[in-house]
Amino acid sequence: MNEIQNIYDNDTFFSEYEKMRETKINANELLEIPMMLSLLPNLKEKRILDIGCGAGGMCRYFAEHGAKYVLGVDISKKMLEVAKSETQNSNVEYRRLAMEYLPEIKDKFDIVFSSLAFHYVEDFNKLMHDISNLLNPKGIFLFSQEHPVNTATILNANMDKKYVEIEGKRYYYLSDYNVDGVRNLKWNIDGVIKYHRSFSTIMNDLIESHFKILRVEESKPNKRALELVEKFKHQKDRPYFLFVKAEKETL
Amino acid sequence: MNEIQNIYDNDTFFSEYEKMRETKINANELLEIPMMLSLLPNLKEKRILDIGCGAGGMCRYFAEHGAKYVLGVDISKKMLEVAKSETQNSNVEYRRLAMEYLPEIKDKFDIVFSSLAFHYVEDFNKLMHDISNLLNPKGIFLFSQEHPVNTATILNANMDKKYVEIEGKRYYYLSDYNVDGVRNLKWNIDGVIKYHRSFSTIMNDLIESHFKILRVEESKPNKRALELVEKFKHQKDRPYFLFVKAEKETL
Repeated sequence: MNEIQNIYDNDTFFSEYEKMRETKINANELLEIPMMLSLLPNLKEKRILDIGCGAGGMCRYFAEHGAKYVLGVDISKKMLEVAKSETQNSNVEYRRLAMEYLPEIKDKFDIVFSSLAFHYVEDFNKLMHDISNLLNPKGIFLFSQEHPVNTATILNANMDKKYVEIEGKRYYYLSDYNVDGVRNLKWNIDGVIKYHRSFSTIMNDLIESHFKILRVEESKPNKRALELVEKFKHQKDRPYFLFVKAEKETL
Repeated sequence: MNEIQNIYDNDTFFSEYEKMRETKINANELLEIPMMLSLLPNLKEKRILDIGCGAGGMCRYFAEHGAKYVLGVDISKKMLEVAKSETQNSNVEYRRLAMEYLPEIKDKFDIVFSSLAFHYVEDFNKLMHDISNLLNPKGIFLFSQEHPVNTATILNANMDKKYVEIEGKRYYYLSDYNVDGVRNLKWNIDGVIKYHRSFSTIMNDLIESHFKILRVEESKPNKRALELVEKFKHQKDRPYFLFVKAEKETL
């Protein structure tokens, strides 16, 4: 297994990331969060685990919307420092833990939530099993990740664009869709590793981990996003994000 | 609603299709059928409906592998004539019926099967509901259709290729993925209409029709296919087919 990545503790990455998040004009705020909020189950009196909680924004949201207890885990020390300094809710806890070590959590939850973290994990099948083990029967699992059509293509080193534009329309390059595995992407710092998984891998790993699929969504342009960021119109051509809501089966 | 298509009764289409199927060196034989066979549930004593049965190849297979009763439906008179002339099994029946009129079948089945037909149907949501109504509780629904990444892109009229080749590698054009609807494709005869649906549409329509997703597959190159048809190596870049196996839930 490759060494576990901790890109958010890289100084350059962290400061670039902070700047991007501060503006509130980004794909997280405009495309990803609205869809995740629309997919949330009832939070009242629920015990919730947030995997890759970052600065704790969603942990605070859960606490403020009726959750009984929230545990946020993240590999990044810097992100957790921000999270702790911004969180006053007494029923929210943070713990530094990589997604690869979830079995260290000796507890059960009603909801497991994760936003845009899973494309950094090498062993998706193990992750699904670990999450299944952390959920109570009928517990809800909601996650987002980069969309397979977005992570698939391994570009030739000479290619500097992910698409060709013909008469004002973008045609994105699609290749390597059926080849699960490492993708190296340039994003803030060089050398960030992501993992591509096809739809069928994602679905089947969930099903094998005793999840019943309740809903699948793909990011789409919405009115506000289009007003603020013109290029988000291309979400119609190739979505950035995949969203899955599933229920832990009673065995 | 558009008029229901019946392309297989077009003389040109039918003879081209017959030629293609006779060679046995095609994507159906080499990529689609092997995957469908691998996904089949136990057939013993089962009542099976085959939607878009064509020449009845799978209907005969079901009868010869223990099915109690098989009904094959298809819109094409020509295809059903071939099917009838080639079928001796007394427990196989054929009926001329478009997929849009499934509620005319007053019967229940243990298995509903459909191979590469659903991308011709305009109203996928209705189709899923109709099929759900035809299945006994715990009944199995297995279908294949063209893969969303294969149907998505609406090419500019001037474009004659679906991909660009750079240093020997194919990058397929992907666009319009999130735009469900009509696609006009050239295949044997001009003017064949197919319908594109995103992965989330397919999954959510199934779930809303009380199906539990059991397995999702995407066509991949296999050894025999690669030996016989070199271009099938590009299945790794962009799969032709999507396969779904689901179970009717007990309400």
